[in-house]
Amino acid sequence: MLFEEMWRELAPVGRFDATGGYRRYSYTPAELECRAWFTAQAEARGLAVEADANGNLWAWWGDPAAGDAVVTGSHLDSVPDGGAFDGPLGVVSAFAAVDLLRANGFSPSKPIGVAAFVEEEGARFGIACLGSRLLTGAIDPAKARALTDENGISLAEAMTAAGLDPNAIGRDQRILDRVGVYVELHIEQGRAQIDMDAPVAVGSAIWPHGRWRFDFEGEANHAGTTRIEDRVDPMLTYANTVLAARKKARVAGALATVGKVHCEPNGTNAIPSRVRAWIDARASTEDTLTSVLADLEHATRERAGRDGTKVTVTRESYSAEVAFDAALRDNLGMLLREQGLGGAPILATGAGHDAGVLASSLPTAMLFVRNPTGVSHAPGEFAEMADCLVGAEALATVLRELAA
Amino acid sequence: MLFEEMWRELAPVGRFDATGGYRRYSYTPAELECRAWFTAQAEARGLAVEADANGNLWAWWGDPAAGDAVVTGSHLDSVPDGGAFDGPLGVVSAFAAVDLLRANGFSPSKPIGVAAFVEEEGARFGIACLGSRLLTGAIDPAKARALTDENGISLAEAMTAAGLDPNAIGRDQRILDRVGVYVELHIEQGRAQIDMDAPVAVGSAIWPHGRWRFDFEGEANHAGTTRIEDRVDPMLTYANTVLAARKKARVAGALATVGKVHCEPNGTNAIPSRVRAWIDARASTEDTLTSVLADLEHATRERAGRDGTKVTVTRESYSAEVAFDAALRDNLGMLLREQGLGGAPILATGAGHDAGVLASSLPTAMLFVRNPTGVSHAPGEFAEMADCLVGAEALATVLRELAA
Repeated sequence: MLFEEMWRELAPVGRFDATGGYRRYSYTPAELECRAWFTAQAEARGLAVEADANGNLWAWWGDPAAGDAVVTGSHLDSVPDGGAFDGPLGVVSAFAAVDLLRANGFSPSKPIGVAAFVEEEGARFGIACLGSRLLTGAIDPAKARALTDENGISLAEAMTAAGLDPNAIGRDQRILDRVGVYVELHIEQGRAQIDMDAPVAVGSAIWPHGRWRFDFEGEANHAGTTRIEDRVDPMLTYANTVLAARKKARVAGALATVGKVHCEPNGTNAIPSRVRAWIDARASTEDTLTSVLADLEHATRERAGRDGTKVTVTRESYSAEVAFDAALRDNLGMLLREQGLGGAPILATGAGHDAGVLASSLPTAMLFVRNPTGVSHAPGEFAEMADCLVGAEALATVLRELAA
Repeated sequence: MLFEEMWRELAPVGRFDATGGYRRYSYTPAELECRAWFTAQAEARGLAVEADANGNLWAWWGDPAAGDAVVTGSHLDSVPDGGAFDGPLGVVSAFAAVDLLRANGFSPSKPIGVAAFVEEEGARFGIACLGSRLLTGAIDPAKARALTDENGISLAEAMTAAGLDPNAIGRDQRILDRVGVYVELHIEQGRAQIDMDAPVAVGSAIWPHGRWRFDFEGEANHAGTTRIEDRVDPMLTYANTVLAARKKARVAGALATVGKVHCEPNGTNAIPSRVRAWIDARASTEDTLTSVLADLEHATRERAGRDGTKVTVTRESYSAEVAFDAALRDNLGMLLREQGLGGAPILATGAGHDAGVLASSLPTAMLFVRNPTGVSHAPGEFAEMADCLVGAEALATVLRELAA
């Protein structure tokens, strides 16, 4: 099946018409349809397909029990109203690369695998790269089972409903022993490749990044009758934190974003009792990231003192810096340049990926495909089909090199 | 039935255990239970009870067709997680005042009515004092029928489900012709009576007030990869507006509050595409209120220009200043002081009430009962039982004077 045909098949699944964005949350009907599509694609190619104990999908060309497999893939879930490319581009490109290799009569001497990791975005259960974290033992299985979505449904319940056994989750040495190397192709989520005129780039590192929850507590009261001097309004402290986060990140050359906020009771004529917000922060070094957060927390507590509000800061997730395998990275860059597949520049990224989580257990690498708007995690996310095809070609070149 | 017994009966209805606040939204089971309680109280006293065409409840001592009735009451619905007193105190006090008059052998020469207006808080359908606005013709019935709640259920559908005819709503001259005067007793929603040591006060005016919706539009994008200089983040413009609203209100001696905010897509790792927020603003004069809003809109547009975001401001509701009937106000104040019911000071309020809406059609007055914390529209709203009993006594005194 041609790349474009695969793309057309996936396009309507989980698309939310009102926004044009995707809502493919793990183990929901839309994501289960994506998983069924994966299985159908694998079977159509005669690849053996299985879900591992953690819900990640694997399709095998050759016998994985031989070990030292060359695996490529990405994920199929999305952020709320995300784009079409973040995740699926890597999976579709993986199948397309297998087709290219076969069309060229390539016979791999190592097994080749295509993978789709579950809950990469953390959009349903709150922890990004959950499937690869479970696989590598980076998260406690009992803690993972108890994670709940916005409706209070636990991961254990969602897995059971999808026909999986939640009691089997956790580090899976059998799977890890099979994999010799993992290469993930992903749409670029910024604008660097536009400036470099590079359809394909090679990943060097993932910035250290994390998510901090800020709880601002005040006192609910009547908006029309409570004197200014009697107010304890957490929305003020929150607003100050939003502006301080941007300012401190900008000064440090880092990133800080408030993308999610909840207000209680959220009534037009009531001073809020509580505002809860999440700060996503990233920087090129861990020292910078630590310093931005410390500065922000200091500014927030200073303002809370003036507002009379109470602030609690909770680090919900943290990912240290990941440097991809240096020899592999340089090898792939050289290979792509030799094949004339663009300049193949080496890029760091602020986005987390399963390849970053797996890097703790095996050599990993990433390829990026140019994004002409730089938009990601939003309906406007886009890649030219021509660039996608160059990406698939580059991935096939890499697999041929690694599996020869 | 004693005041305390009525209070205990109502206390559990619509109480949300997790917050201790009330969720009595119009025509929901909790509010329908309050309405059934009203009917039972009226019937227990032999009062004729009816719902008018707009869903407001009326209980009559004497024949209202005689006209010139003296009506008292309030409302039974609540804001989200509101307190127990805002509304119900006026209704319970009304029944208690009837009991006091009868216990004293009083025989009214004018009919006396007890009313409970529907959707006073606007918590379900977004427009405060909807029942009294419909009754007086202050809102177009077709527009009101089409109002929807957060689940997309229209007022027409909710009324039909409650056994009422939505096609009959609108100005109701038959009811208005019956009423000679309306006196509403309400818990104070600030701290003025604490400082004055006054269990009961008389209302002088309602500040002009309104609700403005601010829509901030930006561009959703990846929080981890979008460079600071490429961002169009509406959360920043919003945060600046929150702080500017407080500052401009404080400088002008007015009030401005942001109690409700919605963010899209509300994902932790996405720059928002849109933030929608509501500004509740009030001031002692219309000129001050207009000037605060103009200053705020100017500051918001200036910041939006720097953020690259787009802002739309929509005035969703507006209530001009209401001065209660001056002769009635002075008469009631004198009467209460003569009866030794505290100093009965004269107070303006920033809160809207049905008595303010009805003031366009007939003489109205308000009595306030002291609130020892000043908290309102929140679970901590409170009045001492001793003050409530003084309030009921004051209301009985007023009814006796007006209906003699």
